[in-house]
Amino acid sequence: MSIQKINLENKLGLFYDHWKPHIIARLNNQHVKLVKFLGEFCWHKHDHEDELFMVIAGNFTMELRDQSITLFPGELIVIPKGVEHRPVAEQEVQIMLFEPEATLNTGNLQNNLTQHKLDFI
Amino acid sequence: MSIQKINLENKLGLFYDHWKPHIIARLNNQHVKLVKFLGEFCWHKHDHEDELFMVIAGNFTMELRDQSITLFPGELIVIPKGVEHRPVAEQEVQIMLFEPEATLNTGNLQNNLTQHKLDFI
Repeated sequence: MSIQKINLENKLGLFYDHWKPHIIARLNNQHVKLVKFLGEFCWHKHDHEDELFMVIAGNFTMELRDQSITLFPGELIVIPKGVEHRPVAEQEVQIMLFEPEATLNTGNLQNNLTQHKLDFI
Repeated sequence: MSIQKINLENKLGLFYDHWKPHIIARLNNQHVKLVKFLGEFCWHKHDHEDELFMVIAGNFTMELRDQSITLFPGELIVIPKGVEHRPVAEQEVQIMLFEPEATLNTGNLQNNLTQHKLDFI
């Protein structure tokens, strides 16, 4: 397939679920994903992957054990491997993720939020 | 150092040069970089790295040997390793890059545009 550009707004219009990342691009064994958050996620960490969160629309708070950081559109944060974190969104927020292909959304935990199989949209 | 968020607009205000990427984050042996383009870059390819370009402000055209693709804010493109490309910007455009730490901006070429040493801003 020939190379095509990706429009984030178009891709964000293709799904309505919360907390389930959707893959939009793959490069260097990394995935670029889009996800919508609403409410509180679970505390978790990734033992082997650093994770980047960038806000496209809305805002959310990344809770860490020693601080909480609220991010707005045009802002990003990198959570290093091993660092416990919990995203919380009072209203729906649209996020872009950049992380290794092997990354599981709930990291070291498996629960009702865990998404083992992601779609490529 | 404690974890901090990164504001793209703030970081883009820290430099005025063109074609020189500035590193803003590091994760999983990848870099997130910001760069401003103006004019025509050189045709080049990266033998070992896929490269992601995302427009933050302005627009530019990614010339490929078989097509040209113009990208606007909120749009991104992945150029796979080995694919020749040349970015062209008629007016200044602000770009975010995701690529492996080892990526050289001019890929297989070394010329007056080559940046061997990048700063972390």
